[in-house]
Amino acid sequence: MHYELYYWPNIQGRGEFVRLALEEAGADYSDMARLEGHGKGIEGIVQILENTKPGSPPFAPPFLKAGKLIIGQTANILQFLGLRLGLVPTANSKQIWAHQLQLTIADFVSEIHDVHHPIAGSLYYKDQKREARRKAVYFLKERVPKYLDYFERILISNTGKSPYTLGRRLSYVDLSLFQIIAGLRYAFPKKMKRLESSYLGLVMLHDKVASRPNIAAYLASERRIPFNEYGIFRHYPELDA
Amino acid sequence: MHYELYYWPNIQGRGEFVRLALEEAGADYSDMARLEGHGKGIEGIVQILENTKPGSPPFAPPFLKAGKLIIGQTANILQFLGLRLGLVPTANSKQIWAHQLQLTIADFVSEIHDVHHPIAGSLYYKDQKREARRKAVYFLKERVPKYLDYFERILISNTGKSPYTLGRRLSYVDLSLFQIIAGLRYAFPKKMKRLESSYLGLVMLHDKVASRPNIAAYLASERRIPFNEYGIFRHYPELDA
Repeated sequence: MHYELYYWPNIQGRGEFVRLALEEAGADYSDMARLEGHGKGIEGIVQILENTKPGSPPFAPPFLKAGKLIIGQTANILQFLGLRLGLVPTANSKQIWAHQLQLTIADFVSEIHDVHHPIAGSLYYKDQKREARRKAVYFLKERVPKYLDYFERILISNTGKSPYTLGRRLSYVDLSLFQIIAGLRYAFPKKMKRLESSYLGLVMLHDKVASRPNIAAYLASERRIPFNEYGIFRHYPELDA
Repeated sequence: MHYELYYWPNIQGRGEFVRLALEEAGADYSDMARLEGHGKGIEGIVQILENTKPGSPPFAPPFLKAGKLIIGQTANILQFLGLRLGLVPTANSKQIWAHQLQLTIADFVSEIHDVHHPIAGSLYYKDQKREARRKAVYFLKERVPKYLDYFERILISNTGKSPYTLGRRLSYVDLSLFQIIAGLRYAFPKKMKRLESSYLGLVMLHDKVASRPNIAAYLASERRIPFNEYGIFRHYPELDA
């Protein structure tokens, strides 16, 4: 099957969690908003969002077109793709567990975003910088360790079987945790330098994922958009206390 | 099957979306933290969260015990229960769509919570009141209409079939949208009074759900915890501009 991913063309953002899954699996896909032509570019995104015909308009990107289906919400897309691309165990209980972990990653991603946008998504960072500085203190002291402790504990409880989160094989959850570590390192390098020795399972998982052939090729390609100050993970030194 | 729900005993919170599904279906369940005894009360929640044995410790309540499974994340629980309790259509494409809507509701719920906690969940409201007042202006002007427009549009596109969101029958998405309208009315009565005439589909859905026999009985019972200023939907008049 040919998949069409619709996401903003200039950021990794939430779309990156889907891109990583498609790339690892070597799936046949188009990153539609990065292409030109009818139904492509940012116009392609807007056309689907504004379609008023009965059906399933998504609330926001990313969304995936797979045949007639249009699927929104990152974790929902990964649940769908995981099954089809062999990126999740086949037992139903494991799929529920993988999805639960992905939804917890989604919560973390929202909190990471809101550190630089504590007041409103429609305001520039500079117009909420004071509140962001205050929020960042609590985020780095309380929330980052809480989430990383949790995922480290999950990884450790699977040690012996593999460096991955679920059983012996890589899953989409591992790809997303790779992105979390890479993103936190970009956004909060000082804090991560101090923290990483407590999260060796996550660091090893990051390295293991980065060295997988398809992911390594992807990261070295132009398809991997560099981190920047328009996405989820932004490096503002004043927030990295 | 007997279900065990684990959630804070003194608030509706995220647990309420699960309670509504269990109540509508007349499911056999225990609201564990509201009971006394071994493995019950708040201790019952903590024991599962702190269990270090390999398995599936959830990150936070609510979580549901169903036989040997422990399922965390509200939308994940509803996806699981929806199938078993007949609260979602049987076609796979409709289940993906229902889940996508539920995840969008989850995003809205997080934003509703963060209005009164823009800086940190660990701080009291009074210690982030200034930031909350600033955030509430944007939330009510931009975010509430954006989400309500979206859900109203979905409802309208299903009109003719039923007052519900998906096809002819009630789904867990409808129960959650009932809770959104009820909660917004509690938290922001002035704003909602001005807005409601633009969202007649959602208002009708709210009334339709509230009048279903099992839901009406639940709402009139002591099992329905009243809204209060510890949950997601809080009434702080200074935020209801």
